[in-house]
Amino acid sequence: MELKNAHACFGGAQRFYEHSSREIGLPMKFSVYLPPQALMGEKVPAVLYLAGLTCTEETFMTKANAQRVAAALGIALIAPDTSPRGAHVPGEADAWDFGVGAGFYLDATREPWARHWRMESYLLGELLPLVCDKLPIAADRIGIFGHSMGGHGALTLALRHPGVFRSLSAFAPIANPVNCPWGRKAFTGYLGEDTSAWAAHDATLLMGEQKNAPYPGGILVDQGMADKFLMEKQLLPEALEAACAKVGQPLNLRMQPGYDHGYYFIQTFIEDHLKHHAAQLSA
Amino acid sequence: MELKNAHACFGGAQRFYEHSSREIGLPMKFSVYLPPQALMGEKVPAVLYLAGLTCTEETFMTKANAQRVAAALGIALIAPDTSPRGAHVPGEADAWDFGVGAGFYLDATREPWARHWRMESYLLGELLPLVCDKLPIAADRIGIFGHSMGGHGALTLALRHPGVFRSLSAFAPIANPVNCPWGRKAFTGYLGEDTSAWAAHDATLLMGEQKNAPYPGGILVDQGMADKFLMEKQLLPEALEAACAKVGQPLNLRMQPGYDHGYYFIQTFIEDHLKHHAAQLSA
Repeated sequence: MELKNAHACFGGAQRFYEHSSREIGLPMKFSVYLPPQALMGEKVPAVLYLAGLTCTEETFMTKANAQRVAAALGIALIAPDTSPRGAHVPGEADAWDFGVGAGFYLDATREPWARHWRMESYLLGELLPLVCDKLPIAADRIGIFGHSMGGHGALTLALRHPGVFRSLSAFAPIANPVNCPWGRKAFTGYLGEDTSAWAAHDATLLMGEQKNAPYPGGILVDQGMADKFLMEKQLLPEALEAACAKVGQPLNLRMQPGYDHGYYFIQTFIEDHLKHHAAQLSA
Repeated sequence: MELKNAHACFGGAQRFYEHSSREIGLPMKFSVYLPPQALMGEKVPAVLYLAGLTCTEETFMTKANAQRVAAALGIALIAPDTSPRGAHVPGEADAWDFGVGAGFYLDATREPWARHWRMESYLLGELLPLVCDKLPIAADRIGIFGHSMGGHGALTLALRHPGVFRSLSAFAPIANPVNCPWGRKAFTGYLGEDTSAWAAHDATLLMGEQKNAPYPGGILVDQGMADKFLMEKQLLPEALEAACAKVGQPLNLRMQPGYDHGYYFIQTFIEDHLKHHAAQLSA
């Protein structure tokens, strides 16, 4: 992995890396914030942040105001890009909600996407092992969170890979993609029209199948009540809430009056999320 | 003034406005963050933030992480654009350090810039009166700060307009523009080759002419020591420091080891700056 840029920030290091990804078959970019404790040689816990549609590995680090809190808590932040870039799949950049910038954090099974669009295998099998190997990050103390499409990614990866992540939260996640336009478009494109393959990538349906609460320490979800995508029924947090209730999964779903879908919403509540992760990662 | 966008943020309101500017002769954009106290009907103090080369009215609000502290302190934030846009002056966008995005917060006297490039008259005579009239901002409790070219703007406007601003700080300001390449290029273009007109827009030279300390409560300046523009002698904080010492102006010039010129540097120290302003605006 090649360090492209580094900036001092709250006594820690904000870094931007690029590496040649085996799983994706292309160069991939990601960013890491290392808190001061990590620069002193300590192995620190980390939270993987998955961003939403159209974002890059820079968005969270620039707009979420997370570094101050991460420095105070001694937590590293890891933010990958949201899809392969440069694959030259015909039509890959024609839509803002599919293809480039819209990987949905799964492995596509349908052509022409299956070759490169392998974000799940990339994150679990390649990026996390890499950063834990090369940086002072404790592999057994990793949490996951994300926003919108990345909230979907955080919830589904946390449920599909038990034992990998010790804490979980989301901002305005696409909580039930099989029942919303974004999800149906993405799953049709990446997984095909046979909807039986879709359930394995839907947070609400995955949660409904759990035998016990997979995250007994609780899941934190913030949702703005002035979020236009909530009103357009793209997010459906009530479906996730019902599934959590059914299986006894503690869920702190906070409906925030007046807040919309953007990073002014995220920066307002980022401290609560990082403290939620820190409490469970240090437990 | 037309409200283009608004976002809830830390219990306050992040707003983006556009208005038709009399001084500039074109539409101008600016942003305002109103803390929760202002939404409750209270008149609040405000700090005017002037951004650096290539920035817009969005940059500070997106990247500086200022809203959390502004909300806690009950201070409004006002951020204008960095130049006129859409004037169609030939060559206006050919350079990143002159013309569009590079107004240097002065009134140009040289053609073809003199018609529209009137940032000083715009800010003092038009934007500040407008926001104090239309928004719950106390006109007698305004501070000013800025970054790089905007640090130059904050220092020079605060010295050229005694009594308007009650507090002053800067991040990595262009402190002595008559002696650096950026300043010489901008002043030649906007003010002409007769250097006698330049001194009135140079923070170090303006400070050196003061009879008494103009800001007896002190000026706070943060400067990253890994800032490449410091090394290239574009910033020259030592010249400002010498001028302040000469006239007895208290200056807290903090040289920050490891920090560069960007917003990761600014976000690290923004809380100190806003507390510096709040202390003097509430005094």
